[in-house]
Amino acid sequence: MILGSFSFFESVAIFSVLGIAFIGLAYALILRGQVLSAEVGDDQMRKIWEGIHQGAETYLDRQWKSIRLLIGFLVFVLFASAWIVNPSQEAIDQFGGMARLAIALGRAGAFLMGATFSSLVGRWGMRMAIQGNLRVAAAAKKNDYAKALKIAYRSGTITGMLTDGLGLFGGTLIFILFGKAAPDALLGFGFGGTLLALFMRVGGGIYTKAADVGADLVGKVEKNIPEDDPRNPAVVADLVGDNVGDCAGMAADIFESYEVTIVSALILGLALWHLTGDLKWIVFPLLVRGIGVLSSVIGTYFVSGEGKKQNPMASINRGFYTSAAISIFGFGLIAIIYMHEWRAFASTLAGIVLAIVIDKLTEYFTDYDKPPVASIARSTKTGAATTILSGIAVGLESSVWAILAIVLTILAAVGIYWGQPTAFILYGIAMTGIGMLTLTGNNVAMDSYGPIVDNASGIGEMAKFPQAAQTILAKLDATGNTTKAITKGVAIGSAVIAAVSLFGAFITDVQKINPHALASGIRISEPIVFVGLLIGGAIPFLFSSLLIKAVSRTASAIVNEVRRQFRELDLMKPGSKPDYAKPVAICTAAAQKELLPIGAIAVLVPIVIGLLLKEESLGAFLAGVILSGQLLAVFMANAGGAWDNAKKYIEVGNYGGKGSDAHKASVVGDTVGDPLKDTAGPALNPMIKVMNLISVIIAPIIVSLKSSPFVFVFIALLLGVIAWAILQGKKETVDMDFGP
Amino acid sequence: MILGSFSFFESVAIFSVLGIAFIGLAYALILRGQVLSAEVGDDQMRKIWEGIHQGAETYLDRQWKSIRLLIGFLVFVLFASAWIVNPSQEAIDQFGGMARLAIALGRAGAFLMGATFSSLVGRWGMRMAIQGNLRVAAAAKKNDYAKALKIAYRSGTITGMLTDGLGLFGGTLIFILFGKAAPDALLGFGFGGTLLALFMRVGGGIYTKAADVGADLVGKVEKNIPEDDPRNPAVVADLVGDNVGDCAGMAADIFESYEVTIVSALILGLALWHLTGDLKWIVFPLLVRGIGVLSSVIGTYFVSGEGKKQNPMASINRGFYTSAAISIFGFGLIAIIYMHEWRAFASTLAGIVLAIVIDKLTEYFTDYDKPPVASIARSTKTGAATTILSGIAVGLESSVWAILAIVLTILAAVGIYWGQPTAFILYGIAMTGIGMLTLTGNNVAMDSYGPIVDNASGIGEMAKFPQAAQTILAKLDATGNTTKAITKGVAIGSAVIAAVSLFGAFITDVQKINPHALASGIRISEPIVFVGLLIGGAIPFLFSSLLIKAVSRTASAIVNEVRRQFRELDLMKPGSKPDYAKPVAICTAAAQKELLPIGAIAVLVPIVIGLLLKEESLGAFLAGVILSGQLLAVFMANAGGAWDNAKKYIEVGNYGGKGSDAHKASVVGDTVGDPLKDTAGPALNPMIKVMNLISVIIAPIIVSLKSSPFVFVFIALLLGVIAWAILQGKKETVDMDFGP
Repeated sequence: MILGSFSFFESVAIFSVLGIAFIGLAYALILRGQVLSAEVGDDQMRKIWEGIHQGAETYLDRQWKSIRLLIGFLVFVLFASAWIVNPSQEAIDQFGGMARLAIALGRAGAFLMGATFSSLVGRWGMRMAIQGNLRVAAAAKKNDYAKALKIAYRSGTITGMLTDGLGLFGGTLIFILFGKAAPDALLGFGFGGTLLALFMRVGGGIYTKAADVGADLVGKVEKNIPEDDPRNPAVVADLVGDNVGDCAGMAADIFESYEVTIVSALILGLALWHLTGDLKWIVFPLLVRGIGVLSSVIGTYFVSGEGKKQNPMASINRGFYTSAAISIFGFGLIAIIYMHEWRAFASTLAGIVLAIVIDKLTEYFTDYDKPPVASIARSTKTGAATTILSGIAVGLESSVWAILAIVLTILAAVGIYWGQPTAFILYGIAMTGIGMLTLTGNNVAMDSYGPIVDNASGIGEMAKFPQAAQTILAKLDATGNTTKAITKGVAIGSAVIAAVSLFGAFITDVQKINPHALASGIRISEPIVFVGLLIGGAIPFLFSSLLIKAVSRTASAIVNEVRRQFRELDLMKPGSKPDYAKPVAICTAAAQKELLPIGAIAVLVPIVIGLLLKEESLGAFLAGVILSGQLLAVFMANAGGAWDNAKKYIEVGNYGGKGSDAHKASVVGDTVGDPLKDTAGPALNPMIKVMNLISVIIAPIIVSLKSSPFVFVFIALLLGVIAWAILQGKKETVDMDFGP
Repeated sequence: MILGSFSFFESVAIFSVLGIAFIGLAYALILRGQVLSAEVGDDQMRKIWEGIHQGAETYLDRQWKSIRLLIGFLVFVLFASAWIVNPSQEAIDQFGGMARLAIALGRAGAFLMGATFSSLVGRWGMRMAIQGNLRVAAAAKKNDYAKALKIAYRSGTITGMLTDGLGLFGGTLIFILFGKAAPDALLGFGFGGTLLALFMRVGGGIYTKAADVGADLVGKVEKNIPEDDPRNPAVVADLVGDNVGDCAGMAADIFESYEVTIVSALILGLALWHLTGDLKWIVFPLLVRGIGVLSSVIGTYFVSGEGKKQNPMASINRGFYTSAAISIFGFGLIAIIYMHEWRAFASTLAGIVLAIVIDKLTEYFTDYDKPPVASIARSTKTGAATTILSGIAVGLESSVWAILAIVLTILAAVGIYWGQPTAFILYGIAMTGIGMLTLTGNNVAMDSYGPIVDNASGIGEMAKFPQAAQTILAKLDATGNTTKAITKGVAIGSAVIAAVSLFGAFITDVQKINPHALASGIRISEPIVFVGLLIGGAIPFLFSSLLIKAVSRTASAIVNEVRRQFRELDLMKPGSKPDYAKPVAICTAAAQKELLPIGAIAVLVPIVIGLLLKEESLGAFLAGVILSGQLLAVFMANAGGAWDNAKKYIEVGNYGGKGSDAHKASVVGDTVGDPLKDTAGPALNPMIKVMNLISVIIAPIIVSLKSSPFVFVFIALLLGVIAWAILQGKKETVDMDFGP
């Protein structure tokens, strides 16, 4: 145990952090009780809701079945990998003769813990969201705006607190158990979390957009019936999609970001401990996280619908700024009384500022009061083509400013630790990552709030609520669109920050095995290293292409099924009953099929690059993945968000309003944006981190491996699997059913 | 003079290369005579043609006026820059006390020569294309297919031979004059050529697509009249655009690629001379280029329309493969009798293979017989949104394979020179660039052929040719679409190859001033260097966004003008006369306005990055520009090409043919693709190279500069200009005229 090296104060502090993790989880449990005790509404509502509930649970069960073999296999591989490379000196210091076994258990166990936590945050969060949306609808039906808002936000807060609590608990526990030898286990923890998040994002993203696009193409476009109309057989699948994509997928993704930032901060903190002999570098990020969780607990509790004006955004923001103020005050206090150093505090603050700047940038480029969306809305007047072009221009530009914000933050960290060894600079960058995700509790609460009110509004429409109730739900829903956009920007930004700081871990890990490797760092001026950069840059393009195709493929299957039902069951006739279960089953099966190829590419490509081109090219490969991944992800998220809001701008009555030619053009923009912003874009975030972590994990193995026929056979095998995966993803759209 | 160091054979060889350059130019002159002696058709045709001719000439005159001050200023700066840094040892060896003056004259003079040549190739090439298109139309009117094809291809070949001749002449001359000290002048030569090409691509690209989109939006969409209908006031502007964009812009761009590859090969050849004492490394690329020009002369002359079948593509390909066979045979011969070395030959061959692979990839992703375009065409059945999405997926995927082809070529060069010092590997990579552009004469001929037959077909339609004549023109035109797509892929691929090999020059240049600088290469594992990579990656996104906006802005102005004319001049009434000159004037003025901001960003951003973050970050910045530039450029070119051909696929009668809903969706795809494939995508190629060359030129200055208040004021000034340029580019679309 590491704790012997700590002062009394430090030991108390670390156990307090563990305690705060439990406070967060307990808070989630209390909120759960509050939400569940609320009224659930009448039978009609519950019947609709039961379909959503069942569909979502079934989906996650099936997903788990699809990936459990892979997870089991990886647990085995990680366990066995401890015998390929000799244990590090730190592990021997810590565990003596048991070092190898301890590493094996740590790596495999932490991986499993990361995967399980990520999966649990997604599943429990989604479950609470589904419980919440029924009760929000019930409260709205009684015209109780304040209660509806409160339930919606608190249901979301449960997910936020699960993220905070499990993330903080896992990292701290590993650190207490493994001490100096923690990096191995921490990397496993991060890898497990991100891999699960990747599956949740990919599966959920395909599900939600295929159902959405499929339902709209037949319902809104061909049959001219409104969204969420109960006659549309895909309407339940669409609502299920909101839950598995926007709730479960998003929650797992943010959990993973939360994890990876603490993993990199702890690894770099350990490096500084070696350098300075001072433990405070490790304790500081844990304390910062602890304070962040406490301030989220307090801030989120203040959000309620009381007060004169019915302005949900103002209530939510009040909670956010309360948390932010408490956090910053707390960090400053620790810097003074414990760190005796302003730099770590300043880097954390830079991260908080970055999160706010990214929020504002996202808002500027996607909010419908701002010039970019206005320019897209104006271009709808000349048709769909100009609408698409102006959206592309807006998206491309937004990624430039987002990357500039990240650049300035990294430069700030460099400036703050100016003149210190590189290890300090990397630590500073890792702390900006911690700062960015300080208010994860609030962010996730805000984000989950979106699909909860969206579903509640859907239930209201399907159960034909009175107008007043529907107005309350519409008001809550409009805010949901804004809150959802913000979290994506922060998540992808944190990927870049975490990746930059993990470069340090990458090099250190390699040099533990071979002190001469990477002596000059990662030099893209070497052609073979530059090649790694080029391949890495292409990966996000490949991923996005495969995901867009997967959505199109699945959406075509839904369109066929919905058209068949309209034709065979004569659904436009009053009294006819659509078969909601069939589209749900199609989406569930189709999304599963895409998981393994995508997962195989994410895990195997870095391994092949490392084995073929060696560790330095692998480092450059990562840089390429990060660069083009960040640019594409922000482009897709913001272009999609901007098109969505341009459509909303027209729907409130501008340029001819609903039904006009301008509106039709804006619908094209929105439909193009959907898979970009909700499937391909969000999946790039965990993809970047999966590749990053697997590279750091395998780098020591690559360095110690001698080339042998066995290695070449192995590479050939992996290349075969990758080729299979790409061919799976390239399969063409199913043939469309154009009826008899 | 360097020639004293050469053997007799080598001296003869080098002057023979100079002679071949003149043979190429003489061949161009002969072809010019042949084309001009052909019949020019009747008065009606000539009147239409006169408008195109005038508009295009006026545009280039105005463009030259817009940029001549900047060119003059840069000539001055380059001249003066010789006094900032001490002359290199090579320059002192070569010119003694006159070294500084020689460098100043070389740099500034070569820059001016590069800019002038690039501009001349564009202007003369375009002029011959315009002369050609009238005569092609006249031949078609007489139902003479063979003559029409021959004139079209030979008019294009003139541009090809100008590119070859002037490119070979310039590089060889500089080398003869400056010898060991040539790199400085060669960089100036490359910079001048690329900067002019950037202006031609940007100005021409905005012009051609604004006119095209503007003409179509009112003519085809609102008034339901065919493309090239003489009642459309923007029809002449549209035809002028084809010439200034697809002829002049393209020719200048390929000329610049041709130049930059020889510049990097000569610079790296000089480095090997230092290393081995052997001059053959410099002579070889010149000989390869000479043989390439000769084989293009022979191969292109064999292209004619004689023979039983009227298949233009087969005739053109026969010429291409004749040239390729002669080249490869010649290279092999030189390798045996002169080089006594297989490696340089093998790398050149790898380049030829890469050019063919990129051709095939482009064909696969954009040809309408192949699965990707078929999948886009199929998705038109579910509307514009799915059409756009499948095009985006196709474009994203195509960029992955293109980069993989480049990666394999670089790896081939690394493998060929395995075990040799890095300087040899870089030389090998530079030789693959030379190989890629060996058949530039044929490529440019094929590419120019496109707009020539397009214009001829336009003239035929406006002058109401009989059906048989129009059929001949349509057949020629269909081939033009394929040949145009191919050149773009090769041009952008060569940018990456040239850039990778120029990394070597970048480091050598810096170390001449400070031997300790960049001792470890360019390490992206350093945060401040990684920041350079991130900023570089964002630049192509910024560029593309600004260019798409510029097209939209100009197209809106054209739409307003065309609507005004239709309304005020009552153009749908027989006998009314549209004012063709006004849209031409609008496009001319608007395209000019965009040149300076775009040029300022391309030239100044690398300087600011270098001054602020120093040489290592500047190197990473370049890598970022290259990576995301290549990915975006191929994405845009191929997505655009695929949408274009999906529309053509439907127009020949599939999925309901012209006028169906599927066709309308395909028109949206085509319109979105237009500015991507003809404005933003092609402009990225010279942009990458401008940034590359300016970085290599300023790197020695940056290394020798001490930080002083003056430097900071200078940086602030440059940042101000860049901010102004971005704001210019961000300006919103003009308000649309929706009539009274």
